[in-house]
Amino acid sequence: MEFDENKEREKRKDEHVQLALLDDRLPPSHFDHLTFVHHSLPNIGWSDINLHVVLPDLDLKSPLYINAMTGGSEKTGKINAELAIIAKATGIAMGVGSQHAGLRNESLADTYRIVRRNNPEGTIFANVGADVLLDFALNAIEMLEANALQIHLNAPQELIMPEGERDFTGWLSQIEKIIKHVKIPVIVKEVGFGMSRNTLRLLKEIGVQYVDISGRGGTNFIGIENRRREKQEYDYLRGWGQTTPISLLEAQEYMNDMMIFASGGIRNPLDAVKCLSLGAKAIGLASPILRVLQNEGTERAIEELINWHEQMKTICTMLGARNMEELCAFPLVITGEVREWCEMRGIDIVAIANRGRL
Amino acid sequence: MEFDENKEREKRKDEHVQLALLDDRLPPSHFDHLTFVHHSLPNIGWSDINLHVVLPDLDLKSPLYINAMTGGSEKTGKINAELAIIAKATGIAMGVGSQHAGLRNESLADTYRIVRRNNPEGTIFANVGADVLLDFALNAIEMLEANALQIHLNAPQELIMPEGERDFTGWLSQIEKIIKHVKIPVIVKEVGFGMSRNTLRLLKEIGVQYVDISGRGGTNFIGIENRRREKQEYDYLRGWGQTTPISLLEAQEYMNDMMIFASGGIRNPLDAVKCLSLGAKAIGLASPILRVLQNEGTERAIEELINWHEQMKTICTMLGARNMEELCAFPLVITGEVREWCEMRGIDIVAIANRGRL
Amino acid sequence: MEFDENKEREKRKDEHVQLALLDDRLPPSHFDHLTFVHHSLPNIGWSDINLHVVLPDLDLKSPLYINAMTGGSEKTGKINAELAIIAKATGIAMGVGSQHAGLRNESLADTYRIVRRNNPEGTIFANVGADVLLDFALNAIEMLEANALQIHLNAPQELIMPEGERDFTGWLSQIEKIIKHVKIPVIVKEVGFGMSRNTLRLLKEIGVQYVDISGRGGTNFIGIENRRREKQEYDYLRGWGQTTPISLLEAQEYMNDMMIFASGGIRNPLDAVKCLSLGAKAIGLASPILRVLQNEGTERAIEELINWHEQMKTICTMLGARNMEELCAFPLVITGEVREWCEMRGIDIVAIANRGRL
Amino acid sequence: MEFDENKEREKRKDEHVQLALLDDRLPPSHFDHLTFVHHSLPNIGWSDINLHVVLPDLDLKSPLYINAMTGGSEKTGKINAELAIIAKATGIAMGVGSQHAGLRNESLADTYRIVRRNNPEGTIFANVGADVLLDFALNAIEMLEANALQIHLNAPQELIMPEGERDFTGWLSQIEKIIKHVKIPVIVKEVGFGMSRNTLRLLKEIGVQYVDISGRGGTNFIGIENRRREKQEYDYLRGWGQTTPISLLEAQEYMNDMMIFASGGIRNPLDAVKCLSLGAKAIGLASPILRVLQNEGTERAIEELINWHEQMKTICTMLGARNMEELCAFPLVITGEVREWCEMRGIDIVAIANRGRL
Ligand SMILES: Cc1cc2nc3c(=O)[nH]c(=O)nc-3n(C[C@H](O)[C@H](O)[C@H](O)COP(=O)(O)O)c2cc1C
Ligand SMILES: Cc1cc2nc3c(=O)[nH]c(=O)nc-3n(C[C@H](O)[C@H](O)[C@H](O)COP(=O)(O)O)c2cc1C
Ligand SMILES: Cc1cc2nc3c(=O)[nH]c(=O)nc-3n(C[C@H](O)[C@H](O)[C@H](O)COP(=O)(O)O)c2cc1C
Ligand SMILES: Cc1cc2nc3c(=O)[nH]c(=O)nc-3n(C[C@H](O)[C@H](O)[C@H](O)COP(=O)(O)O)c2cc1C
Repeated sequence: MEFDENKEREKRKDEHVQLALLDDRLPPSHFDHLTFVHHSLPNIGWSDINLHVVLPDLDLKSPLYINAMTGGSEKTGKINAELAIIAKATGIAMGVGSQHAGLRNESLADTYRIVRRNNPEGTIFANVGADVLLDFALNAIEMLEANALQIHLNAPQELIMPEGERDFTGWLSQIEKIIKHVKIPVIVKEVGFGMSRNTLRLLKEIGVQYVDISGRGGTNFIGIENRRREKQEYDYLRGWGQTTPISLLEAQEYMNDMMIFASGGIRNPLDAVKCLSLGAKAIGLASPILRVLQNEGTERAIEELINWHEQMKTICTMLGARNMEELCAFPLVITGEVREWCEMRGIDIVAIANRGRL
Repeated sequence: MEFDENKEREKRKDEHVQLALLDDRLPPSHFDHLTFVHHSLPNIGWSDINLHVVLPDLDLKSPLYINAMTGGSEKTGKINAELAIIAKATGIAMGVGSQHAGLRNESLADTYRIVRRNNPEGTIFANVGADVLLDFALNAIEMLEANALQIHLNAPQELIMPEGERDFTGWLSQIEKIIKHVKIPVIVKEVGFGMSRNTLRLLKEIGVQYVDISGRGGTNFIGIENRRREKQEYDYLRGWGQTTPISLLEAQEYMNDMMIFASGGIRNPLDAVKCLSLGAKAIGLASPILRVLQNEGTERAIEELINWHEQMKTICTMLGARNMEELCAFPLVITGEVREWCEMRGIDIVAIANRGRL
Repeated sequence: MEFDENKEREKRKDEHVQLALLDDRLPPSHFDHLTFVHHSLPNIGWSDINLHVVLPDLDLKSPLYINAMTGGSEKTGKINAELAIIAKATGIAMGVGSQHAGLRNESLADTYRIVRRNNPEGTIFANVGADVLLDFALNAIEMLEANALQIHLNAPQELIMPEGERDFTGWLSQIEKIIKHVKIPVIVKEVGFGMSRNTLRLLKEIGVQYVDISGRGGTNFIGIENRRREKQEYDYLRGWGQTTPISLLEAQEYMNDMMIFASGGIRNPLDAVKCLSLGAKAIGLASPILRVLQNEGTERAIEELINWHEQMKTICTMLGARNMEELCAFPLVITGEVREWCEMRGIDIVAIANRGRL
Repeated sequence: MEFDENKEREKRKDEHVQLALLDDRLPPSHFDHLTFVHHSLPNIGWSDINLHVVLPDLDLKSPLYINAMTGGSEKTGKINAELAIIAKATGIAMGVGSQHAGLRNESLADTYRIVRRNNPEGTIFANVGADVLLDFALNAIEMLEANALQIHLNAPQELIMPEGERDFTGWLSQIEKIIKHVKIPVIVKEVGFGMSRNTLRLLKEIGVQYVDISGRGGTNFIGIENRRREKQEYDYLRGWGQTTPISLLEAQEYMNDMMIFASGGIRNPLDAVKCLSLGAKAIGLASPILRVLQNEGTERAIEELINWHEQMKTICTMLGARNMEELCAFPLVITGEVREWCEMRGIDIVAIANRGRL
């Protein structure tokens, strides 16, 4: 039976990859409701731009990182190997998928370890769920000689997943315990449903320093798990969760207290720069990288990431922002549905539209 | 002539069922303008959820009930028989269609009585119009050994119905009289046009304790009756009435004084949970159940209702709400046309967007 | 040359009728942004409704009237004859088209006089432009033994009309002069471009008592005249002017000082009742009647108008409003583009959404 | 190599013309969110309208001018020759494209000089970039015996242009220097990305008196340059920049301090009049004129411009505005996305909706 459970988990991992590539994201993107105010006199040059990010115990050459996805089956192990090559070639950080499979079944551990093997000097994130025991978490870190640990919060996914978890009691205290004992940065992350003020407040109260608000708009795990159900009866729930822009706006009051990462539905370098301008310290990409890798191969994926960096610099030059801090001083005008949300929730977007240089 | 009138009424009952199944509801639903704030740390389990509803003189194992629809003709009697089997199998309450036919013509009474016969222990609602004499109402209750009496308000339907009533004087005092004499709960209900603050105030003033605001968005009796007219000249009136979300928002100030039920255009378990979160004590389904029953049979209808219960629990678990009261403490963000309505009418939706856990 | 000018005018009259029937109105209608608050307890009967309108020196059996359209050519004379039969059969008032043709060319006067001949006891409106000399106006009245005189303001039409007027100086003082000398009510009307606060203020200041704000949304004389131009270069101007709902909202502060009539794009009895609820004293229909008459004949047009009256009564019964005054005490919720306009212009629509019975 | 660079520049000039004619503007236009309040009593005549514009050191017979486009290659030299004929025939001012090509390569200077040759008495604008040395600017003026000098700001274009500039340091001080030494009016202009409050403030601070906010909505140089890239990877940036209406609204507080010209996406005479009503002193047309010229020839282009003048007068007559100053006293109602922007940026559009005659 334990064997079967493993087999099933492996099958699930492969299905996730396959279904994530379907790309049935809900248009239009909330990113289109954020508009930079164009300034005709940038007064800087392209070579002035610095995308380096220095955070407590975490040094990122680039604000982009490959977010948690794969491992736990032969196929996804191979993907991990390629992602590691991409990360190494581009100098960006990288997470692996949930390591539970590798922790429960030693024969699968290599599908994660390959990442460190292929990228010995790279910045790598371990990944576990919030219900994991401390030892498990420590083993996950060790497995990768990880530079940071991601703990994912994925209640909606579990609930729609036919074989998923149904009890979410005690996650917060479990996270608190792990944070206390783990020496490297711990990043609490969503998996594509975004976060709210309330979630962030609770995380902050237990001492969480790093959060990836991973919002709605890209990979949709209610959609994916629903497709795996016989009757696909949860289709009406696909709109669940806060989009990435809304999550970042909900997070405004915590921007000084925590390192907020953004991910979920980042379509292009402009979306990424908008996140940075809303205070995000780093930007995670999952399905966009998976898609290029699977459809066009490793070389193209590396090229694509190099292009993203160049284009992010182009956009920063257009704005006249030399670095992350300056980006946050440029006005961003928020309209449409995102504006409505903020007005209802009392989030001060007029300040954001008029900040910095007037 | 009396005979003819009865024949005509029977024919009408059959036509209603047939036309209600056409499903030409006006998209999009106002329910799509209500959005729950996703919280990543529910801290409860699926088995913690309790959907039991205890109300004055009314104990509901589930907040769902089958709303008033059929009886009064051979065909609709058979539907009633099946609905009763469904109600029994799922443990939910059930109403019958207007009993005037059965009260005026003893030979048709059995098309209603079958409901009690098939579900001896169930919670059953009798149903009469607001122009009915007290004795009539008491007979309607007796006919079903009913646990509650629904009095329907359907002026727009009557006016568009070719053979309908044209005078609506005295409904309020008639309801007042019935309430005084009837020992079981009396539920004053709309039939799909929703309610306003003003209607609710008048009902409260005469001592009404139970209201079903049955709003626009699902079964549309102006559409149905217009189809029964030779020239179908009232098509432009199909948008008449308040939707169910707007009706519940109009009802906010009466939520503590009366038991408000919601019905009308509930498409899925998420809509149902949104109603509960806006303060509704129970959720009526009419056409959605009729549709499954007619198209797929009794067994599938039972299955479907069981699924609704499971899915409502899933959504409550996602939110972290153990029961109805807790549901009402979670923030719900209201946007679009529904927001516009509330701003015009002075309904405080900012409070609803920021309530409970921040 | 005078002859040619007349011929041309006759040709134009026929073209207007033909082009008006094209029905290329701009959807959607602003009337769809006005929503009545449904009340479930009307407490009145259909036979309680009274649509009679008593105004200073003007007694209207119905708030509906046939607005100024035809006369001045053989064809349009025939239309006038039929419209008069319709007006007589339904007891509604009726206007004729601009009488300049009949005043300048006696041989065409009969194309207007036929209206009085066919409807000796009816209420008939004469019609002239604002640049007309007093004598001309008096002759126009005499020609019809008219009960009221309409003076039309149609600057945009003239400007787009190839052969139209180009100077609009002195209209206001000309109107002032006519008002002083004419003994019957003088109705200053637009021809489908609506009115503004400013226009109404000026009209009020010179003592105008009756105004037809005839708004955008129905017959579009920029569209019609542009079609008559060789190059049709004014297509981009078709959206010019205030819609009928917006015009009535602009007129709110003058509702007590002047008798405001509404016309322009009234599509159905619900639109008409909405106008009455915004304070309009009467409702003019032009192209909708022309269309039925031309496409389906006189009998159907009469039937149609009788239906409109019945349906207006139905809607009043639904609301619980016995007459015009009561209609103005029912809440009307204004949203969308119309709301935006009112917010920009400082028109208090929250009051309208919450008036009367709460 | 210098030769090659010149060849490349010539090729680019031709490609710009070709790509600008593709007309893939982003619909709908923000101009559709500006609505004049129709007034039924203009009280003026068509012949009262005066479109003459007198500005410090600049006398424009018409507020329209042909904006900077061509020169620098054989083909574009021919276009310049025709544009000059058009400008002469219609009496409007005209700019040439960036003169860098002609300044660096004497053999190409004639492709600019032809403009003065064909229109000896006309008002002609020279054109250089903001990185140009003072001598260069003086030579550009001399080359055309120019009446004014346009300095273009086009950072986004340069950044997306494969061979474009990447450093924008020092533009402001460079402009300051030129202004101090040049005797004719200096117009600092965008090239289709619009301006912000901040840009305008900086320009004002260094003493700029003339600005052309040339906004988004028409010619899109991110789109054009992206098409010239092998991978066209910047497609997602096409929405960059402020539209012309938004730019003019951003400029409201500087309307008294500087002469603001408007250009970018002016589709028709109504758009032009809207700009004037928002305070613009003159209106630049680039691609619309290029399009008629290339598709239908010089004669039709002249005709078209004459029509624009007539139609602008028609619209002014409709409003009752005799001249530019009066136009700015008529209410303009701003809605939709443009309203949202203004609300976020604290721009007082309620004042604009209620100004002048109420
Ligand atoms: C195939 C796939 C598998 C994933 N598995 C995990 C996982 O195991 N752990 C985790 O924290 N997130 C997982 N995610 C979520 C991503 O890390 C990320 O939060 C989410 O996909 C949103 O980003 P995107 O829109 O760029 O894909 C997975 C995503 C994909 C596409
Ligand atoms: C076929 C049919 C018959 C109905 N007959 C009655 C009735 O007799 N009495 C009543 O109170 N409501 C009646 N209703 C209205 C329903 O109880 C309910 O208020 C309305 O259908 C809105 O719910 P829905 O959108 O889920 O159908 C009927 C509805 C249907 C579909
Ligand atoms: C064919 C036609 C001719 C018209 N001629 C006149 C006219 O001579 N004088 C006038 O005041 N209005 C005239 N009108 C305008 C109408 O009286 C009315 O103001 C306008 O058509 C808007 O109403 P509607 O949308 O119901 O057509 C004419 C309308 C039509 C359709
Ligand atoms: C083919 C073409 C070439 C242009 N070249 C220049 C230029 O050299 N210098 C400049 O200041 N603007 C240039 N522009 C920008 C125009 O002057 C104007 O700012 C812009 O096209 C927006 O106006 P439109 O939407 O009417 O085309 C060019 C525009 C076009 C269409």
